[in-house]
Parts: sequence; C-alpha cells; structure tokens
Amino acid sequence: MTQEDYLHKAFLLSTKANIKDIRPNPYVGAIIVNENGEIIGEGFHKLLGGAHAEVIAIQEALKKESDLSNCTLYVTLEPCSHYGKTPPCTNLILAHNIKKVVIGSLDPNPKVSGMAILKENGVLVIELQLPEINELNKVFFINQLNHRPFYQLKVASTLNGKIADRNGVSKWLSNSQSRKFVHETLRDNADCILTTAKTIIKDNAKLNIRLANEISKELSVVVIDPNLDLLKNENAGLALFYPRANSKIYLVTPLSNQTICPALKEYPIEILQVPFNEGKLDITILNKKLIEINIYQVLIEAGGKLNSSFLEANCIDELYLFVTPKIINDNQAIGIFENEHYQSLLDGKKMQLHKVKKIEEDVLLVYKN
Amino acid sequence: MTQEDYLHKAFLLSTKANIKDIRPNPYVGAIIVNENGEIIGEGFHKLLGGAHAEVIAIQEALKKESDLSNCTLYVTLEPCSHYGKTPPCTNLILAHNIKKVVIGSLDPNPKVSGMAILKENGVLVIELQLPEINELNKVFFINQLNHRPFYQLKVASTLNGKIADRNGVSKWLSNSQSRKFVHETLRDNADCILTTAKTIIKDNAKLNIRLANEISKELSVVVIDPNLDLLKNENAGLALFYPRANSKIYLVTPLSNQTICPALKEYPIEILQVPFNEGKLDITILNKKLIEINIYQVLIEAGGKLNSSFLEANCIDELYLFVTPKIINDNQAIGIFENEHYQSLLDGKKMQLHKVKKIEEDVLLVYKN
Repeated sequence: MTQEDYLHKAFLLSTKANIKDIRPNPYVGAIIVNENGEIIGEGFHKLLGGAHAEVIAIQEALKKESDLSNCTLYVTLEPCSHYGKTPPCTNLILAHNIKKVVIGSLDPNPKVSGMAILKENGVLVIELQLPEINELNKVFFINQLNHRPFYQLKVASTLNGKIADRNGVSKWLSNSQSRKFVHETLRDNADCILTTAKTIIKDNAKLNIRLANEISKELSVVVIDPNLDLLKNENAGLALFYPRANSKIYLVTPLSNQTICPALKEYPIEILQVPFNEGKLDITILNKKLIEINIYQVLIEAGGKLNSSFLEANCIDELYLFVTPKIINDNQAIGIFENEHYQSLLDGKKMQLHKVKKIEEDVLLVYKN
Repeated sequence: MTQEDYLHKAFLLSTKANIKDIRPNPYVGAIIVNENGEIIGEGFHKLLGGAHAEVIAIQEALKKESDLSNCTLYVTLEPCSHYGKTPPCTNLILAHNIKKVVIGSLDPNPKVSGMAILKENGVLVIELQLPEINELNKVFFINQLNHRPFYQLKVASTLNGKIADRNGVSKWLSNSQSRKFVHETLRDNADCILTTAKTIIKDNAKLNIRLANEISKELSVVVIDPNLDLLKNENAGLALFYPRANSKIYLVTPLSNQTICPALKEYPIEILQVPFNEGKLDITILNKKLIEINIYQVLIEAGGKLNSSFLEANCIDELYLFVTPKIINDNQAIGIFENEHYQSLLDGKKMQLHKVKKIEEDVLLVYKN
C-alpha cells in the first residue's frame, strides 16, 4: 500500500462520524502503521468534545506494541497543538516518539500549528492533499477560513434561466425525483434553509424535510423579513408554522421592536437583528450571527433578488442548479439572479463545474465557487 | 438474428450515404434474407435520382437465387408506390413475388402508400419502428410533414440563461472545444446558418465552417435584414463577405427595391422577399422560400429576439444549448429568448431532453421539440 492508500483508509474511517455529532469540528480519521506495513491502530473523531482520531488510534496501537517509534501516523487533518476541549495531540505524538506523520489537510485554524511543532521536534511530516478530504470537510474549511456558514444555493430553472413566471408562479418546474434529491440530500444535510418572507408567503411552503415512506423531519428556517411580516396575524396560518420540537424560525430584520401576534406567542421564533443598508441586508453581519447560533451549513432557497445579493457578497459556495426541459418565453419572467445593475461579461462570475447528473428529464448541474 | 437485428443491419447500410448527395431524399437501406436466414442482397440509396435501396438489394439477390418468394425484404423506409425519379418499388417487390416485407418507418409523403398496396396484394407487411431510423431521417420527416426546413437552434449561455451582456458582448462564453463542436458537427451538417443583420454587424462573424488543420469550408447564410443594411457601403468590408465559390448570402427583407453598393455588385447575394407583419417576420412564408431554394436543414445562430420568434412559430426542432460555468448578474443582460409579452409557466414550452454531454466545463444539453 502506498502512503496515499493509507491516508485514503484514514479518510474512509473519518466518514463514519455523523456530521451533526461533531459540528463545528471536521471529520478526522487516523491510523497507525508499523514498520511491517500493518495497521495496528485506528480512530475517528466521533463526538464534539470527545477524543480526537489520533488519540484513539495511538491508544489502540499501544495495546499491540509498546514502542511506536518506528510507526507512521496517517491523519486526515493536521494534528491540533492547542488546548481546546481536549489536550494537544502533538504532545501525545511526541510523547510516544512517533517519527513520521502523514497529513491529509492543513487546519485553517490559526491556533493550530501542529505541523510546525512536530517538525521542530524532529518528526518527519509529509503533507499529502487528497481531494476527497477537502471535499468532505468543505463546510469546516469555509467556516474556519471565512468565519461564516457554508452556503449552498438551490435553484430549479427553465432551460432559459427562469425560476418563475412574471407573476411568481414556480410550481412545479423540477420533477419529483429532483425534488426528492432536494429533500433527502440538500435539506437533510443543512442546518437551516434561508429564504425570504416574500417567498414563504407566496408559496406557503412548509420547508421541512420529507423523506421516503412519508417520514418528515423538522428543519430550522432563517427568513429575511425586514418588516416582520411573518409575525402578523394574517400569516399565523402559514404551513411554515407547523409544530416544532427541535427547530426554530429565525427572522432577520433591522427592527428592534417586535409585535408578535397572539397565535405565535408560544412558537419557537427568534429575531436576528441585522442592519439593512439602503434596503440591502448586511450579509457580513448575518454571517456572524448565524455562526453564533451554531448554523454552519445553509441551504438558500429563495428568489432571484436574494440569490443575487449572496452572489454579490461572494457567499455562494455551491450552486445546485436543476435545469428543467421547459421554456418560459418572456424576458420579464423571474431569473435565477435578479440584479438591476449593469454587469459586463468580463466582470461576470466564473464558477467551477463540479458535477453533472441527469435526473429523468431534469439535469442537475453542481457548481463550486 | 431477430427481425430487429436484420432491420438494424439495413439501417447501418443506409448510413453509408452522404446526406448532401441524396437530399431531399432520406437515408434508406434494404436487405434481402432467404429462408435460411442468409442475407443474399443489400442496397442503400446513394444518390438523388439514382436507384432505390430495395432495387439494388433485389438485383443483388437475384444474382444468387432466382426465386425470391420465400425471402423477406427488410427496408428502413416504406417502399415507394409512385413514379418519381424512378419507378415504384412496390411493382418490383410484387413482380418478384416477395411475400414478406419488414418496414422501419412510414413515408410521410401522402403520395406514398406502399404499405397499403403491398398488403392489398397479399404481402405480409410488418412495421417495426426503430428509433435510430427516425433519428437519422429527422430532417426528411420534418421537411415532408411540415413543408419547411429542419431548424436547429444553437445557443451558448451563462448558467443563468444569458447569451450576452446588456451591451451585446458575447465573446467568448463557450470554450474552444464547444466552439469546435459547433463548427464540425452543427455547421458542417447544415445547409445554411440563419441569423440577423444586427448580429452579423455586431460580431463581424465570418460564419463559415472551420475544421481541424485550419481547413475551412464555405457555408451559405440566410440573414434577416429587413432594411437591407448589409447592402450598404459601410458594411461591404464585413468578414461575412469572404470570397465564395459554392455558397450564397440570402437576405430576407419585405423590400422589393434594392440598392447594392458597388463593392458587392458581383457578390453571390440573393434576396428572399418575405413580408413582415407589424415588424415581425412571416416565418411561414420564409419556410416555403427556403424549401424552394433547396435549404432543408438550418442552424439558427442569432439573438434572443429571433430565437423567440422561431420558438413562438414552433420552428425549433432541436436546441443545442451550451451551458457555460459563468454568471452575468444583471437581469438586463440578453436572454436566450427575448420576448416582451407575458407567458405563464403553464403556457411555457415543454421540450424533450435528448442528450447531455460534458465538454470540459461547458455542458451541452440537447433538446428536441
């Protein structure tokens, strides 16, 4: 087995964790390989605050061999070097005299300088970037590097880029298999959906997660609602206000005073006060507020104007575009991005095509920033 | 071998023809199979005015066996029953006492009732529709059924459905491999490109066929040019007016009087006089004029307004949409279809997804009407 093979094994181990048990931490897997190429220890990070992958792997290895000085540690993320919820892993590596460490990705946290500390102490550190590791921890990297949630934008459009006719009618553009994918893959992996009060009132969408066999799961929703329209009496009957036990509605508004209609007094609603500049949401402040309330991965399902604001703020990390085999022959039908200002072709945004998937007659195009 | 297998063999034979040698005729292949399942005769239609596939196959079979009464004829198109450029094939089939004929597609020409005549004369006729046969002769079927050219629309757009920024700049949206596909596959198979004077003047496009190794071929161009702008002195230097030996420029205009600038007096330009109703081209009349001048397959490469008119006239048989990984965040950038009238989602056009092809970071989506 090559170093890449061992590291890939550590990667596979890391994926055993359930992301909702470890967030905001990343997936991490580690293995210890002795001089004969045998794997004598394995570990993965399973629970926020629980043992790190390296610790579990080293402890398992020590049960088999007392001297690890000829062993190699393969770990998918740079080992930590600071006291967080657990002591630094670099200490343990040095204590057991491990002489070689192969790392699958660097920790973007500036507090972590595990690689440097190991090198200073004479450990041979090899950095092998495996694309699958970066892909698996894409949310963690964006959270750490940009101090904001990872944003996925979901759009279903006609083949000419319209998401609704000029009256806002959009039901249903995409087919049932595409909608199934949205529920089971996109919504089920997100911490919340982000949308606008306008979209919610227009579509009367429930925005929960509908899985196979009529099982449905709650999902928090962040609603851009500058005038707090959702708190008005006439909107108390919206499908969004289904009984919630473990999710919330967050309303984003610049207003500090709020009047909640009686029907919603007991409902799990929270206000996120965020300034609007010239009518435009301050996305930088929203980003901070969302991280504060432990929202790390957001699925945007909204209208062209909100999509356009997030694009402008460079806050679309992934775009899931469902191209449907339809045409609305009307240039005033609503586009994927509705921005009134001029943009030249040269100043346009370039995305990276990541995946193409045929879903019956819809085509899912996945782009990355 | 099954009947489908034999018919597929006849189909493969038919594809040996060069479409430009037989147009407006379709591809036709035929084989004669004896009672032992051996193929004793083969033929395909090779040249307009030349022998039909059945005739060649029967003649070849007669060299091997004098009695064809126990043979089956497999032919990809219903045999002709009228005197055209050659005598009716049904006569020959009956004369040689062939008792069984398997047909791959019906002839849409109302003058052809080969199947009925054969049946009336006691021949067992089996109709097996093979999709590959209909696909191969798609141009012929549209020409015959709708008395108009087969229209392919080629579009390169941003992922949000924009073909140019609001100033009309569109160079280059698609990548070089996509553009190569346009030249080598789409343009090289078309009888002409259809576009507008506006597009030609804006892009100064040559609209010829550029193949590998810097070989280029001429291609006729039909230009919607109501005011005959291309005949004006200031436009005589356009790249479109390269030296032509076997192609023409057709200008579509409602005007009967024309003033050609001196530089273009000798140039192969022809006027197609077509009425415009309230500024809108009468596509039905254009269709007739194009068939009259032997234009059977047209590639539309134009702007959003012309695309929209052809969509409205139900004259887009195939759409080749190159989705590029770019976004122009401006709702006034030019869309694939630019129509100013309201259209609801329900009234929108439904196309059929035919093919998805990744071309580096572009995605080619092929739709059929």
